[in-house]
Amino acid sequence: MASIVLIGAGSASFSLALLKDLILTKSLWGSRVTLVDIDAERLAIAEGLATRYCDAFKADISFAATVDRKNGLEGADFVICAVKVGGYDPLEAERKIAEEHGYYRGIGDRVSCYYGGVGAYHQLKFLMDLAADMERICPNALLIQTANPVFEGTNIVTRHTKVKAVGVCHGHFGYQVVAETLGLNVADVRFQIVGFNHFTWLTHFRYKGQDAYPLIDRWIEEQSEKVWSSGEFPEGMSPGAVDTYRMYGLFPIGDAVRCAGPWWHHTDQKAKERWYGNSGLFFRKDAPGGFDCELQWNRYLQDKVVLHQELVQLAKQPTAALIEKHPLQSSGEQHISIVDAMVNDKETILELNVPNDGCLGGVPDDVLVEIPVVVSGRGIQGLRVGRLPASVMNHSMLPRLIRLENILNAYMNRDRKTLVLMLMDDPRTRSFEQAKRLIDTLLAQPWNAGAAAHYR
Amino acid sequence: MASIVLIGAGSASFSLALLKDLILTKSLWGSRVTLVDIDAERLAIAEGLATRYCDAFKADISFAATVDRKNGLEGADFVICAVKVGGYDPLEAERKIAEEHGYYRGIGDRVSCYYGGVGAYHQLKFLMDLAADMERICPNALLIQTANPVFEGTNIVTRHTKVKAVGVCHGHFGYQVVAETLGLNVADVRFQIVGFNHFTWLTHFRYKGQDAYPLIDRWIEEQSEKVWSSGEFPEGMSPGAVDTYRMYGLFPIGDAVRCAGPWWHHTDQKAKERWYGNSGLFFRKDAPGGFDCELQWNRYLQDKVVLHQELVQLAKQPTAALIEKHPLQSSGEQHISIVDAMVNDKETILELNVPNDGCLGGVPDDVLVEIPVVVSGRGIQGLRVGRLPASVMNHSMLPRLIRLENILNAYMNRDRKTLVLMLMDDPRTRSFEQAKRLIDTLLAQPWNAGAAAHYR
Repeated sequence: MASIVLIGAGSASFSLALLKDLILTKSLWGSRVTLVDIDAERLAIAEGLATRYCDAFKADISFAATVDRKNGLEGADFVICAVKVGGYDPLEAERKIAEEHGYYRGIGDRVSCYYGGVGAYHQLKFLMDLAADMERICPNALLIQTANPVFEGTNIVTRHTKVKAVGVCHGHFGYQVVAETLGLNVADVRFQIVGFNHFTWLTHFRYKGQDAYPLIDRWIEEQSEKVWSSGEFPEGMSPGAVDTYRMYGLFPIGDAVRCAGPWWHHTDQKAKERWYGNSGLFFRKDAPGGFDCELQWNRYLQDKVVLHQELVQLAKQPTAALIEKHPLQSSGEQHISIVDAMVNDKETILELNVPNDGCLGGVPDDVLVEIPVVVSGRGIQGLRVGRLPASVMNHSMLPRLIRLENILNAYMNRDRKTLVLMLMDDPRTRSFEQAKRLIDTLLAQPWNAGAAAHYR
Repeated sequence: MASIVLIGAGSASFSLALLKDLILTKSLWGSRVTLVDIDAERLAIAEGLATRYCDAFKADISFAATVDRKNGLEGADFVICAVKVGGYDPLEAERKIAEEHGYYRGIGDRVSCYYGGVGAYHQLKFLMDLAADMERICPNALLIQTANPVFEGTNIVTRHTKVKAVGVCHGHFGYQVVAETLGLNVADVRFQIVGFNHFTWLTHFRYKGQDAYPLIDRWIEEQSEKVWSSGEFPEGMSPGAVDTYRMYGLFPIGDAVRCAGPWWHHTDQKAKERWYGNSGLFFRKDAPGGFDCELQWNRYLQDKVVLHQELVQLAKQPTAALIEKHPLQSSGEQHISIVDAMVNDKETILELNVPNDGCLGGVPDDVLVEIPVVVSGRGIQGLRVGRLPASVMNHSMLPRLIRLENILNAYMNRDRKTLVLMLMDDPRTRSFEQAKRLIDTLLAQPWNAGAAAHYR
């Protein structure tokens, strides 16, 4: 069957999630999975858990594990990348430094800079290095790129290397949150979601064959105030989501609720509470301000640590305990569906990030768009989705497009100046000196030595 | 020959300037010029001056004058529009209101909002009304559109009407200022200037067959500090122009020196003095801060009044006095050159604003670009100029493109919200409420009653 390489497999929870999907996809049994991570200890734990989990279900999937990426890539058909270079501590330290310079919760986009650090450097460098390896070792493999920033990280590969790559996220499933809040049966909902990663918009929303947008409008008119004052509502139907919808004309979905809306939803904790209230992505509701706020984000990071520690403990316990805690069920991720659709030539409609090539009007061909695609033995084919409304394009998408171009150009041309100029577009910047000082300070941190040498 | 209609002919100085070009272009003698203005008194003065001036040179050009635009358009081949609706007083009043709301020197782009008022409404409305008349009365005529904002004003016509239109400016002649400052003989300079109107960049600069950009670099290195400290330098070679060149990688030309550079060159009078010093477009050098600063701009408006009053006086004096004060020489404008090239099929290279249609890479086809074109009996044909550097595109051009799209969409969709959202991109805006209050206040002014009804 397929040879699948998982880069960043030391995240045992992510490895386990994909493994479950693989076990549930019998048409892919016989496949070989190679787990790759630079952390031998974490890798050994992930491999042990995966092997035991697989054996328990008698799934015909073989495993290998290696800390040598080049070795792992030999003969790969699919390379799934879920790497977060350097962990989260440097990012949190950069955020603190930025706050001292007047930038509440740090600089830049609420994803690209959070994950890649200043200029998204660490993630971009990793992906370009990985792509260079793939070009040599497995030039026909597909890179299934799920590491943030998915937008810049995947687009730099599709634009500047010969590697075939597709970006994968799960944010579009946020349409279910909208449907559930309206009291709809999700199985009867049809939708189309279009945009850039984390800048995704509900262009079509149909329920039992009818346009369901009027149901959203009615909910806003008749129920929103009551629901919001109760404090119990999902981020996807928060005042921030509805305000963005009213301003731009389409409902934002998933991370777009926070990422694609206007800057003034995020100026301080008070604003975040006003627009996101007690809502969160999947969090305890006693941390108002939405997923990006200090409390929720820090809990998210803590939860990651706790989850991994639990898995470390489970690795020492009988398999039954592991399965009880982590029952075999679909992860809801799309990675394995892509592999299945391509290997077994099953025409499958997914929501993926691919070079535009004319699918979304008004966006250049070489820009990565998140759109519905058909995946099959023929490959990945985007659906032509027409144009987004002018308001969405001009107020949200095009500014984000400029940010993409700046991040990629800064990286490719090693241009520190562009990092400063990007920060000049931040509404909190008061002077060129302020922006330059912060960029220089960030690049002077010990973990950024490589970045400092890169951005000349 | 040609039937040329001049809309806004009550500006006697502009009418006289075009007339001189026409007299100097013998191949267009036999043409008929129709002067149109809503101000009968100003129109009569312009007509009298034009007729006498023409007679003095025995030029075979016939004149008509009318306050009835529809009447004037009958049989037109070329319609030159130089209208400033409502004069400048409302703009200055809007600027003062904006300053009370925290926006030094007013809101928006340093051209589109200065000339059209909030949303550029008055100019856009005039041009759309004019185009509607032209569609009916003279559907084959070419609109030679020179009224600011040239970018939005011409683009709304090319995109949303059937009228053929071309935008005309003289800003590109700013390359001569660069050449002269370097001590070059302008006649030996070849250049290419590319961009949007007032966002124009020197993509090629050659002197006697050699790349002359190194001469700019050497001037910056060896002479700029000395020249700047003398206080005697043109705006086109000011610290602001050089800073923009250093940041974006191409030299800004003409109005681009102020319009296409970064916002922090304009935050206050002190900043303006730092970046533009005593320089100005064509002004006394005792008003530091560049053409947009309070002193220079007010003088510009005063000078307009004075110039007109002088012409009113000259209208009562012998023709010899008129000619002595306004000798027959080329205006340096391109309007009549367009007419001559088309009517007499003379292939002429000009710098005009035309729908892109693939000439400038990375810009949609239906966006107006300022590029070199060949004008002839075949019409106006743009030169393919390739791409601008990423820095210029991402830091200056694309943000301006978004602004164009917002202004046109706000007008076409009657969308007040977009006017507010545009203002949210202003680095001086602190809250949505601040922006909304200012837009509502501006639209509540008596001269904006039509605009207030339009933007719902």
